[in-house]
Amino acid sequence: MTWRFALLVAPAAADDLRDGYDDTLAVIDPDAPALSVGELSTQRGDGIFETIGVVDGHPQEVQAHLERLAHSARLCDLPAPNLPQWRAAVDRAAAACPPGESAIKLILSRGVERAATGLEGPTAWVTASPVPDHSRARVEGIKVATLDRGLDSRAATRAPWLLLGAKTLSYAVNMAALREAHRRGADDAIFLTTDGYVLEAPTASVILRRGDRFITPEPTGGILQGTTQLSVFDWLEENGHSTDYEHVPAGSLADADAMWLVSSVRLAVPVTHLDGAALGVDRELTAAMNAYLLSPRD
Amino acid sequence: MTWRFALLVAPAAADDLRDGYDDTLAVIDPDAPALSVGELSTQRGDGIFETIGVVDGHPQEVQAHLERLAHSARLCDLPAPNLPQWRAAVDRAAAACPPGESAIKLILSRGVERAATGLEGPTAWVTASPVPDHSRARVEGIKVATLDRGLDSRAATRAPWLLLGAKTLSYAVNMAALREAHRRGADDAIFLTTDGYVLEAPTASVILRRGDRFITPEPTGGILQGTTQLSVFDWLEENGHSTDYEHVPAGSLADADAMWLVSSVRLAVPVTHLDGAALGVDRELTAAMNAYLLSPRD
Repeated sequence: MTWRFALLVAPAAADDLRDGYDDTLAVIDPDAPALSVGELSTQRGDGIFETIGVVDGHPQEVQAHLERLAHSARLCDLPAPNLPQWRAAVDRAAAACPPGESAIKLILSRGVERAATGLEGPTAWVTASPVPDHSRARVEGIKVATLDRGLDSRAATRAPWLLLGAKTLSYAVNMAALREAHRRGADDAIFLTTDGYVLEAPTASVILRRGDRFITPEPTGGILQGTTQLSVFDWLEENGHSTDYEHVPAGSLADADAMWLVSSVRLAVPVTHLDGAALGVDRELTAAMNAYLLSPRD
Repeated sequence: MTWRFALLVAPAAADDLRDGYDDTLAVIDPDAPALSVGELSTQRGDGIFETIGVVDGHPQEVQAHLERLAHSARLCDLPAPNLPQWRAAVDRAAAACPPGESAIKLILSRGVERAATGLEGPTAWVTASPVPDHSRARVEGIKVATLDRGLDSRAATRAPWLLLGAKTLSYAVNMAALREAHRRGADDAIFLTTDGYVLEAPTASVILRRGDRFITPEPTGGILQGTTQLSVFDWLEENGHSTDYEHVPAGSLADADAMWLVSSVRLAVPVTHLDGAALGVDRELTAAMNAYLLSPRD
């Protein structure tokens, strides 16, 4: 668990097409100083990111992550990322990953604030690193606490400056929600709207099963569209299940036949308890779901 | 406008008392790489900050800023900052400031995420830098757009994990609100709750005048208690005015006799237009207020 890889990316314009982008990608020592104190990512959480799971050197669902990076950039008025360049960076990082599971992180920051010249354009970097062993949580599941997100279900539509559909670096609230969940004896949280609907977990999407129907909260801009959730839904459809996007009332969670939090690195973990009350766990389906998520996916 | 000063701070425990903390403060090149890519400030906006105005080498209201830093640390479950150490760092940074106005920024990050060892404790740094010339805005004022913050006025009390009273590094929404204000032809924004109350500006507090009464929104946890607002209220009281903390309905803003946004570096700027409608401007009082704010304050 000691290796780590990092690459500084000199962002190329989206229409700058060239072979491999070698001159724009610089391998650096991941533990050495690399970013200046003027970085707006550190000063303002002003930037966007993606986390990509890697299995045996294969980065999973890269295109979906890159498309969401571009979507986040649009919502944050950042320059359009050059997706072939980012893909080249992901490929370089994936090549550094040993067998087993790893994670690649893409970060696009608004840049360095310079006193003399104002902003100098975005900075960007990519890291690869080992991940904790989530195999036990994938089998035995996790306890979840529901937490008020303070926002109603129409906030994203009404107030796009809240950046609810963007995966920004401003994750202090997400991290605080996880600490609150731990204080409540839970392992993770599910955010609810003030008008009583299910949103998402701080770093994962929510999927429910009701009979043979699989449901995830409608991505109306108030949540991130989960790349892993999309992948799981494709797999469920291929296996003859039906999937739906719905407004999910918080009160209906306790009646679900099963529930999962799904994300790029931890993959699918069954929810065993919601606010202390036991939920059904579908061990067989969960195992099949994670076997699929651990197979190479593009 | 080209100078800049930076200091890395090796956070000392709050009960570690020593003379000057010289061995814990390292002057660095502010433009050189100083932070590693594993910094949680960059990855998660997970940390807190303060911005202190400096006039002719005198850092303003340092104690109030340090107390707010400690308050933010408590809300974010960060180790209590060693305030004498931070004051020593501020003094070192202030000594590097030339005559005129500057800004000192204090940043306390949750630290560096290390694959091998988990978290290694907080990282911290202090910068000093020149500031834009705000003298024109202080006299001529600014146009402001009101923007929905998506939260109701009781959210902070109900959901402390939203960190509404903490000055965290997760400022992406604040920055997006400023861009939205610019799109609307305004210079700045005032956030409103969904139930129609005034909160604060993205990087400033709101003060209103009604006759001889000066009013700022009640700090019920939904906003930052502004250090400059506190200082202005002290000054107003000393000059025979009355001051009040109130729930300010958004609908009452247009009736104010005057309105200011106040903050540590830009100081007091009169609001000339609110959502396009002209407001009264009290030029004489504004000039006196800024003369006070530019005098040495402790």
